Amino acid sequence: MGGAGPEIERLMALLSKLPGLGPRSARRAALALLKKREQLLIPLTGAMQDAADRVTTCRVCGRLSTQNPCAVCADPSRDTTMICVVEEDSALWAMERVGAFSGRYHVLGGLLSALDGVRPEDLRLESLVARVRGGEVGEIIMALPATVEGQTTAHYIADRLKGLDNQVVVTYLARGVPVGGELDWLDDGTIAHAFKTRR
Amino acid sequence: MGGAGPEIERLMALLSKLPGLGPRSARRAALALLKKREQLLIPLTGAMQDAADRVTTCRVCGRLSTQNPCAVCADPSRDTTMICVVEEDSALWAMERVGAFSGRYHVLGGLLSALDGVRPEDLRLESLVARVRGGEVGEIIMALPATVEGQTTAHYIADRLKGLDNQVVVTYLARGVPVGGELDWLDDGTIAHAFKTRR
Repeated sequence: MGGAGPEIERLMALLSKLPGLGPRSARRAALALLKKREQLLIPLTGAMQDAADRVTTCRVCGRLSTQNPCAVCADPSRDTTMICVVEEDSALWAMERVGAFSGRYHVLGGLLSALDGVRPEDLRLESLVARVRGGEVGEIIMALPATVEGQTTAHYIADRLKGLDNQVVVTYLARGVPVGGELDWLDDGTIAHAFKTRR
Repeated sequence: MGGAGPEIERLMALLSKLPGLGPRSARRAALALLKKREQLLIPLTGAMQDAADRVTTCRVCGRLSTQNPCAVCADPSRDTTMICVVEEDSALWAMERVGAFSGRYHVLGGLLSALDGVRPEDLRLESLVARVRGGEVGEIIMALPATVEGQTTAHYIADRLKGLDNQVVVTYLARGVPVGGELDWLDDGTIAHAFKTRR
């Protein structure tokens, strides 16, 4: 116990559950909130209450959104023939920040993992199959992590889609040297892959 | 803009104002909150609302507390002859975690700084003088940072207290090698000081 009183201790304990915050940074965050009551504590409490009340999961793509269907799924100007498959909302946000993709998304909500016991039925897979069966989709872009789980999941989905009547092209994000990346800092696997797939 | 929708973007923007969180970790924190709605988002919102509604500043020592006077100032078993002067609540929490001090506190709310324009009247100094004038206090323990600002503030307070009718002993936290500390990692000033004040 830190002697800050039960209410402040509880605030610290909950803040320390946020990713990236340990007990010490949670104490600093709690102090900052309490010292900046008007500028930070009250607006952040409001934003969180708002999120708790209004954020839901898009019934089409599974992303977190206050609209249902979400802004992307409801936008008639977005290309309905391409679906970009991502693990989490954070990857979708990254794709949207880049602004290079004009199609729609599908958020799996995780990756297959024998170790963590994540099975196909734990992911948003059947709704992806249903969207492909719908007939409009021509290309599935796998924007999944370049990890064992990410690649296993991508292959599983590609296999699953092969069995369908309406065939789709499955593409993968290119792998190679990151823009601005120094070779010296890259792992050998990436360098070998970038060399093999040079153009 | 991250394409996460205005409500989630606002949540991220406010989270990124917490100390220790940048834009990227604020996105991760927002995603964790939204994914752990019941276990994290709702309890943390509640704890923050509770803090916003109930936490105030103790009228005696100036610490953040839901009680006024705070639990330490109201505790008759705490020694009223000793006041430990700290910069911020975080230092008070650290002293209370250690549990070595049985007296009371005084939270200055900052340190004198010509650079940042913090003057004596910006700190909780007059209420400290008033507490000493009250007559019960025999010792003032300066638990201020071992920085230029911390030491300037400590000397200013000691000078200010010298002019009073009821004299108090002013003590300072010992300086030296931290417990478990390797000499190799310490700055030269600390080593020199620890050598000079060896016992």
